[in-house]
Amino acid sequence: MATPYKQPPHKLTMIPGPIEFSDEVLGAMATPSQAHTSPEFVKTFQSVLQNLRKLFKSSDPDAQAYVIAGSGTLGWDIVSTNLLSPGDKVLVLSTGFFSDSFADCLKIYGIDVDVVTAPVGGVVPVETVAEKLKSTKYTAITITHVDTSTSVVSDVKAVSEIVKKESPETLIVVDGVCSIGVEDLEFDKWGIDFALTASQKAIGVPAGLSISFASARAVAKALARKETVFFASLKRWTPIMKAYESGNGAYFATPAVQTITALKVSLDDILSGSIDDRFAKHAEISSKFKSSVEKLGLKIVPLSHDVAAHGLTAVYFPENINGADLLAKLSSKGFTVAGGIHKALVGKYFRVGHMGYSVYAGHVDQLTKALEESLDELK
Amino acid sequence: MATPYKQPPHKLTMIPGPIEFSDEVLGAMATPSQAHTSPEFVKTFQSVLQNLRKLFKSSDPDAQAYVIAGSGTLGWDIVSTNLLSPGDKVLVLSTGFFSDSFADCLKIYGIDVDVVTAPVGGVVPVETVAEKLKSTKYTAITITHVDTSTSVVSDVKAVSEIVKKESPETLIVVDGVCSIGVEDLEFDKWGIDFALTASQKAIGVPAGLSISFASARAVAKALARKETVFFASLKRWTPIMKAYESGNGAYFATPAVQTITALKVSLDDILSGSIDDRFAKHAEISSKFKSSVEKLGLKIVPLSHDVAAHGLTAVYFPENINGADLLAKLSSKGFTVAGGIHKALVGKYFRVGHMGYSVYAGHVDQLTKALEESLDELK
Repeated sequence: MATPYKQPPHKLTMIPGPIEFSDEVLGAMATPSQAHTSPEFVKTFQSVLQNLRKLFKSSDPDAQAYVIAGSGTLGWDIVSTNLLSPGDKVLVLSTGFFSDSFADCLKIYGIDVDVVTAPVGGVVPVETVAEKLKSTKYTAITITHVDTSTSVVSDVKAVSEIVKKESPETLIVVDGVCSIGVEDLEFDKWGIDFALTASQKAIGVPAGLSISFASARAVAKALARKETVFFASLKRWTPIMKAYESGNGAYFATPAVQTITALKVSLDDILSGSIDDRFAKHAEISSKFKSSVEKLGLKIVPLSHDVAAHGLTAVYFPENINGADLLAKLSSKGFTVAGGIHKALVGKYFRVGHMGYSVYAGHVDQLTKALEESLDELK
Repeated sequence: MATPYKQPPHKLTMIPGPIEFSDEVLGAMATPSQAHTSPEFVKTFQSVLQNLRKLFKSSDPDAQAYVIAGSGTLGWDIVSTNLLSPGDKVLVLSTGFFSDSFADCLKIYGIDVDVVTAPVGGVVPVETVAEKLKSTKYTAITITHVDTSTSVVSDVKAVSEIVKKESPETLIVVDGVCSIGVEDLEFDKWGIDFALTASQKAIGVPAGLSISFASARAVAKALARKETVFFASLKRWTPIMKAYESGNGAYFATPAVQTITALKVSLDDILSGSIDDRFAKHAEISSKFKSSVEKLGLKIVPLSHDVAAHGLTAVYFPENINGADLLAKLSSKGFTVAGGIHKALVGKYFRVGHMGYSVYAGHVDQLTKALEESLDELK
């Protein structure tokens, strides 16, 4: 069990992940060693796998959660090598750097990728998606729920409805790295086939875990195929996850015991209240931050508030102030925020994460104040 | 920076990994959030990458260490997809379950695997290796330095000499998952091309990191090829590792900040003294434990002490005692040891890890005493 732990004062990491972690989560990272098949750890991992069903709002017993040592990026490989084959056609809706990187990963595996790119700060219109689906048979469509490079949120529900209408065989893959735990995702109801995420974003746990959730048909597809990869093979991992979830240890590769224990603590916390209340709280804090930023005369990257994500905000630097100076000033006041990584806008904007612990601990208000002071001082 | 931390009393995990961790290492796991490109974390990762050169006893600036979120198993994929191509012939020296699993991984990637299997508890004779190398041109040879299923240590130095003599073009790949940090490995001097390990064994850090080291020619081979994988691609990771090692942040996939911070703490500790003294200390404690076990009338799995690994011991259950009862008795006395996983011997033996922190904290003597008492009580 985790020992009570209180983190020391430190610079607040308010980037779009890794985010700030609670004392309880960090304390769980320091859990003394446990065998990966010990009764203690089996119970922990069982709870995690059961709770992930709740986080993804899934009640289908044939759907399956996967927690594998790795990073969010590993999820792209899992999709490319378990649900797709070389030559398959995939429609990629691109809302920025991460959508394009997912496409790069698919291409490495010989997949025939069709990228539809949204204007910077915008999303791909559902009409365009419908047209593409009418003209071509795609094995899968990928939607980057929140592209961390632009802080744009795609309407997964609306896109899924179009897919179900125009091409129900097409697998719906959601990159939820920066959305799971902060944006609503109704896995079963919307008919999602695969959603991938990572531990260090809104799920609120240190980096080191690839977390994903597969529909019954995605699991069946993965199990039926000839394996072409080893570590990323869902054929290897499915029986392992099923064993742990049913309360038994199993071995393919050693799980990250401490980080999974921290994940248990974070999921227990997230699910201790209503998950919809959590999404509403994030939306409220996000709106408040965006309004504050706009009152300070700054412009956000999303083209409208309708497409602005709730877990982070990408903000243009003011014209009269050097971006690096602003980041340094914020750092001197105790806040780490992120530079921009969208290739069309590098050096022109910065990104602030407001997910999880920081939303509840009042960090966003503190940062808003520091931003106001910084702008004043740099005038 | 890590906060002082003292782990609570707990059952001692004395399996062949995850091992017990020091308070300092566990404290580092609870490091408050840092951005993956923050100056603080860049400094941590830089130190880790520099120190891994010392751990692998390499001074070649063109060799490269890699630390990637994952597990030891991921190292097999890295070898299969960065150093080899479908159709390549590879000689696998098998000393147990893990050697065979490495072969399984290679086969998944279309590699033409030639497995030479040692008798249970023994190693593959160097003469056999020489014969194989004379008869066939192998792209690589894999040596499982310590096969955790049998607690047998292979003579990597002797095998490497034969390879250099008979087939110097053949890449020498060492699975060092249960050896790095406890058995000597002279990476440059012996002409190793790739050694892979994981964090939770003798390196003394919670599970979650794939750690590997590549020779100049292995790096060159990986960089020159067409990529066929994404997350496991050394072509993607090499510039990232070089950036961090030279003191700059870079991004491909988010590193496991806390676990890498714990790795820094453990490497600092390991390298604070002579690494050869560390190996000698492990050999001494290992011999003492093996002698005690034999004095208790038990038989070890390795066919002789010459091939017995120094970080763990596989021991046959006594004939008159039920194995499960012995493990339960040890558990009731506060020790977790591991069952056997070699398919020829399942249920017939158990495995005790004596690596890292436990070797220095007196855990091995405590376990020896508990084992003696358990055997007495079960008579």
